[in-house]
Amino acid sequence: MGKGAKGKGKKSGKKSGKQAGKVSSKKAKELETQAAEDEVIAAHEEAAVEEIQDVANALRVGKGFVLTDVDTSGTPGFSGKKLEGKAALKACEAELSDLLERLFAESTTGSKRSLLLVVQGMDTSGKGGIMRHVISVNPQGVKATGFKAPTKEELAHDFLWRIEKALPGAGQLGVFDRSHYEDVLIVRVHDVVPEAIWSRRYAQINAFERKAIAAGTTVIKVMTHISKDEQKARLMERLDRPDKYYKYNPGDVDERSHWGEYMEAYQAVLDKTSTVGAPWHVVPADRKWYARLAVQQLLLEALRGMNLQWPQADFDVEVEKKRLSAS
Amino acid sequence: MGKGAKGKGKKSGKKSGKQAGKVSSKKAKELETQAAEDEVIAAHEEAAVEEIQDVANALRVGKGFVLTDVDTSGTPGFSGKKLEGKAALKACEAELSDLLERLFAESTTGSKRSLLLVVQGMDTSGKGGIMRHVISVNPQGVKATGFKAPTKEELAHDFLWRIEKALPGAGQLGVFDRSHYEDVLIVRVHDVVPEAIWSRRYAQINAFERKAIAAGTTVIKVMTHISKDEQKARLMERLDRPDKYYKYNPGDVDERSHWGEYMEAYQAVLDKTSTVGAPWHVVPADRKWYARLAVQQLLLEALRGMNLQWPQADFDVEVEKKRLSAS
Repeated sequence: MGKGAKGKGKKSGKKSGKQAGKVSSKKAKELETQAAEDEVIAAHEEAAVEEIQDVANALRVGKGFVLTDVDTSGTPGFSGKKLEGKAALKACEAELSDLLERLFAESTTGSKRSLLLVVQGMDTSGKGGIMRHVISVNPQGVKATGFKAPTKEELAHDFLWRIEKALPGAGQLGVFDRSHYEDVLIVRVHDVVPEAIWSRRYAQINAFERKAIAAGTTVIKVMTHISKDEQKARLMERLDRPDKYYKYNPGDVDERSHWGEYMEAYQAVLDKTSTVGAPWHVVPADRKWYARLAVQQLLLEALRGMNLQWPQADFDVEVEKKRLSAS
Repeated sequence: MGKGAKGKGKKSGKKSGKQAGKVSSKKAKELETQAAEDEVIAAHEEAAVEEIQDVANALRVGKGFVLTDVDTSGTPGFSGKKLEGKAALKACEAELSDLLERLFAESTTGSKRSLLLVVQGMDTSGKGGIMRHVISVNPQGVKATGFKAPTKEELAHDFLWRIEKALPGAGQLGVFDRSHYEDVLIVRVHDVVPEAIWSRRYAQINAFERKAIAAGTTVIKVMTHISKDEQKARLMERLDRPDKYYKYNPGDVDERSHWGEYMEAYQAVLDKTSTVGAPWHVVPADRKWYARLAVQQLLLEALRGMNLQWPQADFDVEVEKKRLSAS
């Protein structure tokens, strides 16, 4: 038993019975650590925001971008370290939540605008963590879809059929965990369909995204980019922790032998589909805290640029106040 | 300009240009307030957990339950005040997230178990806040559905048709913001269908829920219960704040004249559908912080009772470690 837990038992006095019945000493210890971390992070919020520069600009993929030149452990556009990164993420949650509410509010008076975040990346690159730590501010206004290997029904349709159905509605934030880009990534690396078919898909994807943009959707595309070594470390952690076994699949190791081909396939995606309307952002993701902060900042940048206003009342406010008072 | 903002301007020195470009003085002030509140809440987490008693038991609807006897401003099962309530909610987030991950993990090895939270309550009773503040821990494992007035297509089917489609899949937490109970609440109050039809629905609902339970779903039903006066105050706030106009509908005032009939309809729901397998919980909701904490505790109680274990590895861990090392 650790010193903290022992101390607790001694101090508790008449409260001990009650406490013992509810919180085990292991749980209490976990809670103590969690509460201490929450406190330190909260104390750094204000200062940490100062460390945020223009993340979106630093990560945007333009002409001549070379994926293999990216330092996957970098933190472009942020000058702080891990603690500040977590604090900055926390500090910006309220604004993100506010802007997403404005986006939704706008749709109640007929606006068709929406936002779509596409997240692609190699296994273990932290896509799930982004869902949990960035997007969690507003589950109701969020339409999140995880794309797995296509079902029989999905395979019987064009590859964009299931994507179309998952697009966000007016006022929503859509989030794709993997996406239509799998159809030019894993499909290309493993020759799931002939080159004559997948090579046409880049243009089909661009046309599809143009249509979504024309319908009012702002599209943000993110590649969470880790090194091959970092992936090895993360897979090893899954094998070291029984609570992570469920995330491990022996096929993950086989896929590592295709790393170079995957990087080529990603480079082709960046070359062919980073358009002015729907540019890619390559997010260095060896540091999980940075990747989460970066994606949050990309969302914030897009939402701030939408100039979202609360809709005008479509009723007479003073009349309604009187009616309500009398009710 | 407030004192805080002025002081900031003076202190800033060479940082001022950078800061001015990013954070307006109004935003900085908001951030300061938010950060200060986060800090105070974090500091109270450990102590606040001690104030949680058996919330689920205190709120469960049994035989002879009388809705109009409930104190809508009470905090059954919790001995703290607002600050402790917010701190307790924060402190329990990690456990809720962990248990939901276990539920999901279990489904990867074939378990069909899932959880369904049904939230019903009068307008402004805080259903949306529960979504944002309680459920937000894990948007990916969550299937949230807000039920609005039925569409033409939905009306062409049995009332449970759209509900069935929204049930959680294996490993998921399903959340209903409004539900099939609307079909014996607003429908009953406004005679949308004849009594001969709605009066049969209670038994149909019980049968439907029994089927879901048999398929592996744990069902938690919650009524967020506010007083008529509290509703008036909340609607008035919407009329006082331009950022809340979008939530206001003149029809809301008309509905208030049916308050008594709604309470009768809710009483009938509690009498007829609070079953052993799927009991109702009436959550006093005049205090938003309490309603959120209470629903979180109901979820925790259900999940703790499921004895969720991390699945065993279905591969040889040592073999995989060697393969991974060599990759």
